[in-house]
Amino acid sequence: MSYVAPLKDMLFNLKYLADIEQIAQLPGFEDAGFETAQAVLEEAAKFNEGVLAPLNWEGDKNPSSWKDGVVTATPGFKQAFRQFADGGWQGLQHPVDFGGQGLPKTIGAACGEMQNSANMSFALCPLLTDGAIEALLTAGSNELKATYLENLVSGKWTGTMNLTEPQAGSDLAAVRSRAEPLADGSYKVFGTKVFITWGEHDMAENIVHLVLARVTGAPEGVKGISLFVVPKFLVNKDGSLGARNDVQCVSIEHKMGIKASPTAVLQFGDHGGALGYLVGQENRGLEYMFIMMNAARFGVGVQGIAIAERSYQQAVTFAKDRVQSRPVDALAPANATIIYHPDVKRMLMTMRAYTEGCRAMATVAAAAYDAAHHHADAEVRKQNQAFYEFMVPLIKGYSTEMSLEVTSLGVQVHGGMGYIEETGAAQYYRDAKILTIYEGTTAIQANDLVGRKTARDGGQTAKALAAQIEATEGLLVKSGSADALAVAKRLKAARVAFVDVVNFVATNTKTRPSDVFAGSVPYLMLAGNLMAGWQLARALLMAQDEIAQGVDVSFMQAKIITARFYADHLLTKAPGMRDAIVDGCESVTALALDAF
Amino acid sequence: MSYVAPLKDMLFNLKYLADIEQIAQLPGFEDAGFETAQAVLEEAAKFNEGVLAPLNWEGDKNPSSWKDGVVTATPGFKQAFRQFADGGWQGLQHPVDFGGQGLPKTIGAACGEMQNSANMSFALCPLLTDGAIEALLTAGSNELKATYLENLVSGKWTGTMNLTEPQAGSDLAAVRSRAEPLADGSYKVFGTKVFITWGEHDMAENIVHLVLARVTGAPEGVKGISLFVVPKFLVNKDGSLGARNDVQCVSIEHKMGIKASPTAVLQFGDHGGALGYLVGQENRGLEYMFIMMNAARFGVGVQGIAIAERSYQQAVTFAKDRVQSRPVDALAPANATIIYHPDVKRMLMTMRAYTEGCRAMATVAAAAYDAAHHHADAEVRKQNQAFYEFMVPLIKGYSTEMSLEVTSLGVQVHGGMGYIEETGAAQYYRDAKILTIYEGTTAIQANDLVGRKTARDGGQTAKALAAQIEATEGLLVKSGSADALAVAKRLKAARVAFVDVVNFVATNTKTRPSDVFAGSVPYLMLAGNLMAGWQLARALLMAQDEIAQGVDVSFMQAKIITARFYADHLLTKAPGMRDAIVDGCESVTALALDAF
Repeated sequence: MSYVAPLKDMLFNLKYLADIEQIAQLPGFEDAGFETAQAVLEEAAKFNEGVLAPLNWEGDKNPSSWKDGVVTATPGFKQAFRQFADGGWQGLQHPVDFGGQGLPKTIGAACGEMQNSANMSFALCPLLTDGAIEALLTAGSNELKATYLENLVSGKWTGTMNLTEPQAGSDLAAVRSRAEPLADGSYKVFGTKVFITWGEHDMAENIVHLVLARVTGAPEGVKGISLFVVPKFLVNKDGSLGARNDVQCVSIEHKMGIKASPTAVLQFGDHGGALGYLVGQENRGLEYMFIMMNAARFGVGVQGIAIAERSYQQAVTFAKDRVQSRPVDALAPANATIIYHPDVKRMLMTMRAYTEGCRAMATVAAAAYDAAHHHADAEVRKQNQAFYEFMVPLIKGYSTEMSLEVTSLGVQVHGGMGYIEETGAAQYYRDAKILTIYEGTTAIQANDLVGRKTARDGGQTAKALAAQIEATEGLLVKSGSADALAVAKRLKAARVAFVDVVNFVATNTKTRPSDVFAGSVPYLMLAGNLMAGWQLARALLMAQDEIAQGVDVSFMQAKIITARFYADHLLTKAPGMRDAIVDGCESVTALALDAF
Repeated sequence: MSYVAPLKDMLFNLKYLADIEQIAQLPGFEDAGFETAQAVLEEAAKFNEGVLAPLNWEGDKNPSSWKDGVVTATPGFKQAFRQFADGGWQGLQHPVDFGGQGLPKTIGAACGEMQNSANMSFALCPLLTDGAIEALLTAGSNELKATYLENLVSGKWTGTMNLTEPQAGSDLAAVRSRAEPLADGSYKVFGTKVFITWGEHDMAENIVHLVLARVTGAPEGVKGISLFVVPKFLVNKDGSLGARNDVQCVSIEHKMGIKASPTAVLQFGDHGGALGYLVGQENRGLEYMFIMMNAARFGVGVQGIAIAERSYQQAVTFAKDRVQSRPVDALAPANATIIYHPDVKRMLMTMRAYTEGCRAMATVAAAAYDAAHHHADAEVRKQNQAFYEFMVPLIKGYSTEMSLEVTSLGVQVHGGMGYIEETGAAQYYRDAKILTIYEGTTAIQANDLVGRKTARDGGQTAKALAAQIEATEGLLVKSGSADALAVAKRLKAARVAFVDVVNFVATNTKTRPSDVFAGSVPYLMLAGNLMAGWQLARALLMAQDEIAQGVDVSFMQAKIITARFYADHLLTKAPGMRDAIVDGCESVTALALDAF
């Protein structure tokens, strides 16, 4: 159950698909070229392979535990978190001003993937801290920034996101936690928050909760929600820790997976009120929270890729070791390992193609994020922002949904051994299932894709992407190789299907919302499938060029085969999905409720 | 987490799709008409809802436990098993001569589904006992039958299937357990068997192990395997229990699911040899075992349907209860339960359509089994047997693969609550994953479909089915309703895709085995999808007729909508699968092994 970071594939993506040397031209990223990326990724690989990966199974066996309000992390996690913090990994993408390294998201995403492949339960803690840092950077006062950021960026403290309440899950309008203003400008916060990831633990000196609550007298619904910092320990003027705040962890959940990651029920204000500090302005909390959430959604998409990679690696190792049955191919040895069986190859190729496709998609989106935030030209920033925003629900939704299929295949490759917990394949299957749920279910991502990302601009962003894909098809046809032509054919069919659906969505969201939203998740899956397949098609073209130059031939050949497999076996799903979405919308909602 | 047997749907299938009144015309089934079926199913519902279903979650919390070779079942299981036996449920389909009720498989399959919906871990025990009974009926001597059958049929004793060894999973040619003949005609059996379901427990007085082993001097490979009865306790001449046999349970597995069902490692002959009795002739063990396995494979397919149904019921209950967000449809109430959201409906309809489609498919196959075994006309028997045998890998493979998707959706409908073990949805997700593995993985089913069921007869059976499907398309077109026409369109496209693949398989299995087996599982999925969709199309036609007569209108309307949904959303996958199988075969096996 060891883990080896897929450095070669990551560096290929950085160099060829994300054009990291272009990112190094952006103001602020002058040192972030390919060589820096390579050095950072190699260090990250060392740490994640050596420190975090060996603790993954331990976390499943010995989950975080709760006793009398105190949560103790899995043995070894506290020490590993110190090493993580001391290595500067928490600050990788954060501003140099607060002690971070200020590296681009393009590099950060690769490191994030490694952390999550190595140990998803562990990596959730820094993921949430990233969100808290993002929120404070965006909307925090200078005082809040000065008080909290440096310790969060250094990993001395950790952060959480407190959104969900028992009656308010996907529906944040239903948030009931409340905040009473005090004379000194601070607030007393009251309420119950559930599903708070790493909401209580012993890995850091302090925990900085970012909490959604309503100020007394605020309007109903989403327009009356404010965002507060509520630290576990109050912070004195000199930065030292003061009294324990009135926030208690009353229990943690018994979950199917990510067991090392404590999922807390937090009670705010049971003993007079938890002291909280407003982030930004009153009633704009949801807006700020969305900034955190968009960062976190990208991060959860990367978790999907990460767990798929880990599951793939374990399946490959098993398939190369386990001897069973004579393969159908007479060329194979009589007592062959099961990787010689065509169906085992089909499963492994499916896992590989999904993982590489989604990794390529996420890497390109991360590069767009960097350009959107650092490019000198406002128009370029705007275009990149639109692309990035379109991609976020796809990365979150598609990469996590595919991770369910991949981790299921990961168990399947192992046969009966896969069902035995000690083998480790089952852990990935159980762990992955949270990914399509938290930080917005796949349906919530699909709502975002339909509403804000497609209907709002009449499908313009989507169609601009389709035009770019069509250009890639042209290049594939021009290249003329059998693989390129086969990929072009499937890419075109998928792109045409996508445009049909985009038109359907753009035309009907207002007038026939039920019909459009009946196909929202299939639309997301079709779009994600297309975007991942497109990036692999781009990769195929570049790999062909490199082979012509004699560069890294066997790696480049593998990339071409994977792109071809993706097109043959995954892009071929797209036309049928179009039919289901456009022609099949009515049968989704036809059944009377009492007939269920 | 209660369970309500879907009696209405089961009885619809029995009456309209399986034509139970025709089965009651078969010799030996004179009493097995619709009214008998209804009475039996209602009794079964009472028992499974009231006794087995409430123990399901208990079994997950308190799995069977092992201590010093003794396995203790989950609290309550032993008592429930007594009730099960006393109710005569073990003997439902078995011959009256040995104390059974001799009912058709058509009825037995419905009862089996209920048992498995109620409590899959529990139901595995009778499922394996059925297999042992089947093997003894087929090949056991009169003495073996006299000694064992009555107590197995009555549920006084239970049975097991001992195939797998550490080095012999899918590959039974690798079995190493051995049997030394003794002077009195019995044998001493030695070896280690793993993954033995209910291989040791305290629910019954004796356990009758059916064990594959090689007689001293037998040929290598599958032609040297014999089948033995090895009882846990030896049986005296008078039928009373004698000494403990030399078979020990040395451990049970720590599994992801079906935790109440002990999965035993059994050690035979560590203390001088376990006494065993040959079933049938030496070296024909695999042949007999296949008879048990074919029965068990059908049974496992039914388990897929069963767990999908349970998962669906729980998701519907939650979706009708949980209030969250305003639906997009302005007609829905402002504070609506989530079942008003189109995507929740899409998930529930997907679950429902898969479940009803596979149930219909299994019911029709069970009816063919009954005709194949009881019809007076040899030609009719032969046709039914060919149909049944073609369907078994589809029922096992497709119904279990779909159960993974259904139970995943079942968790998804619950959002974050689905990931909390106490909710119960996660248990179905974990339990279901064994179904695509045991009794032959999906790939093993697909090998059977490709080799024995398609290539061997040049695709004749498959094409005869396609012709029947085409006839159904004709009836749909003739009926002329919008639903029938929409279903006809999708059914036709799926059938054409199926025939293309059948031709590809029939033509190339010998000459290009790797290319064909690269698509074997997708072929199975395409075929299963088509067969389930076809049965729902037939159901639609009959439901339309009944509505015209004013019979049970709301149920019949729901059936039509479900059939339409299946065609719109699931049958639409078929053409893309054809493209992947036929045009995409080469990219499956193109990657060099060291590139993985």
